[in-house]
Amino acid sequence: MNPIQVGLLGIGTVGGGTFAVLKRNQEEIKRRAGRGIEITRVAARNVERAKTLVGSAVEVVSDPFAVVNDPDIEIIVEVIGGTTLAKDLVMKAIANGKHVVTANKALLAEHGNEVFAAAHAKGVMVAFEGAVAVSIPIIKALREGLSGNRIEWVAGIINGTTNFILSEMRDKGLSFETALAQAQALGYAEADPTFDIEGFDAAHKATILAAIAFGVPVQFKRAHVEGITQLAAADIAYAYQLGYRIKLLGIAKRTHTGIELRVHPTLIPIKRLLANVEGSMNGIMVKSDAAGITMYYGAGAGSEQTASAVIADLVDVTRLHTADAAQRVPHLAFQPDAMSDTPILPMSHIVTSYYLRLRVADQTGVLAKVTGILAQADISIDAVLQRESDEISGVEASQTDLIILTHDCKESQMDAAIALMQALPTVLQTIVRIRKEELV
Amino acid sequence: MNPIQVGLLGIGTVGGGTFAVLKRNQEEIKRRAGRGIEITRVAARNVERAKTLVGSAVEVVSDPFAVVNDPDIEIIVEVIGGTTLAKDLVMKAIANGKHVVTANKALLAEHGNEVFAAAHAKGVMVAFEGAVAVSIPIIKALREGLSGNRIEWVAGIINGTTNFILSEMRDKGLSFETALAQAQALGYAEADPTFDIEGFDAAHKATILAAIAFGVPVQFKRAHVEGITQLAAADIAYAYQLGYRIKLLGIAKRTHTGIELRVHPTLIPIKRLLANVEGSMNGIMVKSDAAGITMYYGAGAGSEQTASAVIADLVDVTRLHTADAAQRVPHLAFQPDAMSDTPILPMSHIVTSYYLRLRVADQTGVLAKVTGILAQADISIDAVLQRESDEISGVEASQTDLIILTHDCKESQMDAAIALMQALPTVLQTIVRIRKEELV
Repeated sequence: MNPIQVGLLGIGTVGGGTFAVLKRNQEEIKRRAGRGIEITRVAARNVERAKTLVGSAVEVVSDPFAVVNDPDIEIIVEVIGGTTLAKDLVMKAIANGKHVVTANKALLAEHGNEVFAAAHAKGVMVAFEGAVAVSIPIIKALREGLSGNRIEWVAGIINGTTNFILSEMRDKGLSFETALAQAQALGYAEADPTFDIEGFDAAHKATILAAIAFGVPVQFKRAHVEGITQLAAADIAYAYQLGYRIKLLGIAKRTHTGIELRVHPTLIPIKRLLANVEGSMNGIMVKSDAAGITMYYGAGAGSEQTASAVIADLVDVTRLHTADAAQRVPHLAFQPDAMSDTPILPMSHIVTSYYLRLRVADQTGVLAKVTGILAQADISIDAVLQRESDEISGVEASQTDLIILTHDCKESQMDAAIALMQALPTVLQTIVRIRKEELV
Repeated sequence: MNPIQVGLLGIGTVGGGTFAVLKRNQEEIKRRAGRGIEITRVAARNVERAKTLVGSAVEVVSDPFAVVNDPDIEIIVEVIGGTTLAKDLVMKAIANGKHVVTANKALLAEHGNEVFAAAHAKGVMVAFEGAVAVSIPIIKALREGLSGNRIEWVAGIINGTTNFILSEMRDKGLSFETALAQAQALGYAEADPTFDIEGFDAAHKATILAAIAFGVPVQFKRAHVEGITQLAAADIAYAYQLGYRIKLLGIAKRTHTGIELRVHPTLIPIKRLLANVEGSMNGIMVKSDAAGITMYYGAGAGSEQTASAVIADLVDVTRLHTADAAQRVPHLAFQPDAMSDTPILPMSHIVTSYYLRLRVADQTGVLAKVTGILAQADISIDAVLQRESDEISGVEASQTDLIILTHDCKESQMDAAIALMQALPTVLQTIVRIRKEELV
């Protein structure tokens, strides 16, 4: 059988890696897929540069629509990124009856419902293993490997840039700014790092994970998104003393009233494997009713690491492109006519435990007032850490830090309690609140 | 569409869990699979007990062949275990044109080639996610998730019983015998624990992992199998001082000359996540050329944990039972006509590094003699730990322990060097040799 023909849109880091790995491992991939898989046409902004990468046997064009409209091409790999041109190209490819493989989490988190509906109507596949934690087949694990389970929650370190920064802050006691500068120097963070450090990238991925875990449409707009820019080195140190590490987690959790979908810095117990996922690596924990807790670990970015996911998708699509819809894995794990309308909960409704840091006047009675407010709000305390002012660097002798770990409560309860504590004249700075998850 | 009808052979721990989870999650599973999946006939040794488990809507019979020969049943779930009756039943089911889901690693590691060939000839599927590290979809990850990669090695803690025993030995300083007795009391080890503690169970699983990682037939007879019964608490303590933990690993590694397939206690660096997989949990690391290192973690045994894998297979089979062979994932990851004849290497050819413990006479010149022999054998030393005899409990003042970590060498080199060292009059006991893997 002739090789299946693939059109590649974009040949930067991911596209270049995909081309290279597909070529290097072509024999082994063919032995698995039962058919050769060949990139025969590439669209690139810089045609000359692309030509030196792919050689003379592959046609390079500057117009990506020429690839999408090519009748010989059966699968389009979209690795341009973004949600404008990429969306037009993906929708056009689908309209042309082509299968699509993409690693574009922004596109799927923001427009996935439209993309998947079009693909379903046209009878083509849109595969996206590369959209989350690239080297880890987590989409496959959730959609297929755990298909017998009722999934309870997914919690993941799904952004390598922020995990690298947090690891450096903890390891070397650096400030956020210094760690970020280091990440940029090493190429782990972009010149404009907003997208990563403010949590948007993780939220795109968490949105996709929530959809396939619970069978709901993608709803990026309802995700709570909080980055790591406000984290102080002191909080990382205090957390450590209490037996926790702080990680930026993407969390999707099923509750009796709806689905929690949130990205924020989170204290997690040091003894969890997830707490020990360091540097730019990714790790995802899944709790489900039959399998219990499973965890998945690997690189979350990189040229060949993403290629690994893209090619796995190409093999799946090659195998199933002649199959009918019932024989394929549904895009969002559940059949399109069996999606759930379980709501994504507003943040005020979520339930979690908290780490609080209060900069307070170093005088008697402060702790009593603070704990009194928490008791009034029906929030019970798990642990208190009160530092002597001389143990804290850069703090006046008349001030000290009061650290409190709470048990679970509703976010709205905590909001109200924090407002009351903040109004105390002995509370001298904005109260730091970081959520905590035990992950059991 | 009517539910697909499943026949269940055996309703003990795994069969009972499968029945329970399939029933509990039937709505969610149907939303994923697009079709209901129902166990309609069960074969059990104790028919009365089985009837109380499954209720009156399901027919229970004592003859498993009655289920395998039932024309209404499309999928057989075999969870009887063993390689005799189970094999006859699986072969008969295949001959009858039925798909098979099994968690029987012994059957597949020892007779897999025959089973898969029969299934291929008949056009049916044999699915076996439950055969390795039940809660972890590792078969799917290797066969499909990493299909774009050339896999370099797989190293896994794939036997929960031995991992529990080793965790207890390290944690509490117990002897092997005491830890085993504890594992038996807690139900983590069977009354006759031979199969687990001698490494056979891990070797069955490693055999299957090697086949799907490298596209070779299952070759259990060529696996090197070594259990944990010879491990002393002292070795676990010394390893810890050197920065390592000892785990029973199943290792499948591709080399230039062939495939290493071995199960033995192994020193691994404490900082690896795998070293921190404790108790009865399983963890599997995979190194592949594009994805790099990925790791998978979860329970390796248990009623509902195994059910999770069995039901995932049922969903896959339900989806693909009407597909043709080219649309299905090949049993051993590679197409049957594209299997490799790369040999499994004899143990003398494998390359690894070593931990050696020598009980020696406490006199000058011993270390020089020992290191001289290693140098002669072209084995370079990574670290030496020499204990004063008064630091070692239960040792005469005239004796001491000499611990050596080596760099990589061939097993045959090490065999020869050990023979020479063992012949030294100052070496007083049998030399302890434990292999070490850095896992990078």
